[in-house]
Amino acid sequence: MSYDVVIIGAGPGGLTAGIYAGRAGLKTLIIEKFFSGGQASQTYEIENYPGFVKVGGFDLMQEMEKQAKESGAEIKFCEIERVDLAKKKIYLTSGEVIESKTIIIASGATHAHLNVEGEDELIGQGVSYCATCDGAFYKGKTVAIVGGGNTAVSDALYLNKFAKSVYIIHRRNEFRASPVLVERMRKNGTIIKTPYTVSSLNIEDKKLKSITIVNKENQSESIEVDGLFVAVGQTPETGLFDVQKDEKGYIVTDENMKTNLDGVYAVGDCRAKFLRQVVTACADGAIASEQALLYITLNN
Amino acid sequence: MSYDVVIIGAGPGGLTAGIYAGRAGLKTLIIEKFFSGGQASQTYEIENYPGFVKVGGFDLMQEMEKQAKESGAEIKFCEIERVDLAKKKIYLTSGEVIESKTIIIASGATHAHLNVEGEDELIGQGVSYCATCDGAFYKGKTVAIVGGGNTAVSDALYLNKFAKSVYIIHRRNEFRASPVLVERMRKNGTIIKTPYTVSSLNIEDKKLKSITIVNKENQSESIEVDGLFVAVGQTPETGLFDVQKDEKGYIVTDENMKTNLDGVYAVGDCRAKFLRQVVTACADGAIASEQALLYITLNN
Repeated sequence: MSYDVVIIGAGPGGLTAGIYAGRAGLKTLIIEKFFSGGQASQTYEIENYPGFVKVGGFDLMQEMEKQAKESGAEIKFCEIERVDLAKKKIYLTSGEVIESKTIIIASGATHAHLNVEGEDELIGQGVSYCATCDGAFYKGKTVAIVGGGNTAVSDALYLNKFAKSVYIIHRRNEFRASPVLVERMRKNGTIIKTPYTVSSLNIEDKKLKSITIVNKENQSESIEVDGLFVAVGQTPETGLFDVQKDEKGYIVTDENMKTNLDGVYAVGDCRAKFLRQVVTACADGAIASEQALLYITLNN
Repeated sequence: MSYDVVIIGAGPGGLTAGIYAGRAGLKTLIIEKFFSGGQASQTYEIENYPGFVKVGGFDLMQEMEKQAKESGAEIKFCEIERVDLAKKKIYLTSGEVIESKTIIIASGATHAHLNVEGEDELIGQGVSYCATCDGAFYKGKTVAIVGGGNTAVSDALYLNKFAKSVYIIHRRNEFRASPVLVERMRKNGTIIKTPYTVSSLNIEDKKLKSITIVNKENQSESIEVDGLFVAVGQTPETGLFDVQKDEKGYIVTDENMKTNLDGVYAVGDCRAKFLRQVVTACADGAIASEQALLYITLNN
């Protein structure tokens, strides 16, 4: 099949690119590996997406998916084997080859791991990277969060609503999160352990039993926990793409989402930029599709 | 009064800056001359703001205003006499002087009108100033565009993908737009009427029914249209601000909304950029407030 625009990834950036490309009358395909909405759809509540005082991430992303479809974009759930950005060909694992005049990369980012022994085996058995997804399993139980950014502190606020005890473990004394969130966390009874890192996960019956934390003076402490929420950062999902990236793997673009390759754009969390939010991903998507339209107009 | 952030203008960019600055715990004031929402609040229906398949512009902007207030931002309706950006002092016509650590300019832009009778009443009922925003409402219908620059000719190319017939009306024989765009427009079936101006808008049931165009020899012609896109220029509302601007008066920023003055940012339609949409204004606002937070953290 041949398209005007193929968008890789159906998070907020990809879906908005779909809305704009579809409305512009371009033959548009969005390719998604898992489900629409990206990380945003796993977010329990969003309060800073303009236009909604409060909205569930899943609901917001469902609406964007619907909007992209109604704008005329197709969405295909499938896996990509490899991408030839220069020739603008996408090879699916099914053997199908998709051609396009332009490609918008909206592949997002994934959560960083602690890289402590046992971490991977304990995913779903006490270790989680998404409080919104898994928090409800820990009603009346004790949980710990690792991290110091907005996600970690928001997780502490969220989990405190129903967990018995909430710890937050951060390797620095100061939290990077918004002061308003930190202030709220300090007031709501979260037990703050700084500056500590997690040195081991202690397992019993294949489940997380406790964690050991350690500081720079090598003082260690064991905390019995039922769940550990890891919120220590992100890695861009850009391995498939042979395009200019920064040292962390984020795709480098200009302010109009253009990569170093003609007719190839990158939007949302996978691109190198200052602020990764739903609204900034959406704006990226709108800009990329208008740029793709211009490119097609001038080159075909 | 003294603030951390003063935002000038309460359109989508200014209100989103308010949401983010408020949530970041910054003492935030939004100053607005008329009413919240800017041009967006006068838009009958918006279909391309992500998260709403369809939403009234007024309703969307009311929600953003509420959200900015709930985030902790104050909104003050008043008129500005002058602004000293270097000293970050704002002098109101009332005599009051407002000081701030940072200033975010979100003063917007206005579309030039034809100044033909009935034009203002028909906004949203057949008259539009933005093809990207409203074009999709005219699938399979007949539309006319007025103007001769890049916006007008791009609008003709854009609308031709799905409208039944597209007219372009320009007061000169030569188009000011890029030759490559004009060439494409000439080839794609756009009906070109030059040198003509629009002399009247003919209304039926409170909707646009047809337009009358006239040339210098006083020959006139009536064209039945469903929609009229006015693309005769936009003027940024930047007269108050002594800051670096481009030749058209738009404020020059980097991709993080920084102007040439420390602690002074510009967002939304008043800044020099590729795409002016509600969602891009919102993203600008989010970025500017996070930049202001960083500036205050580093400089106070």
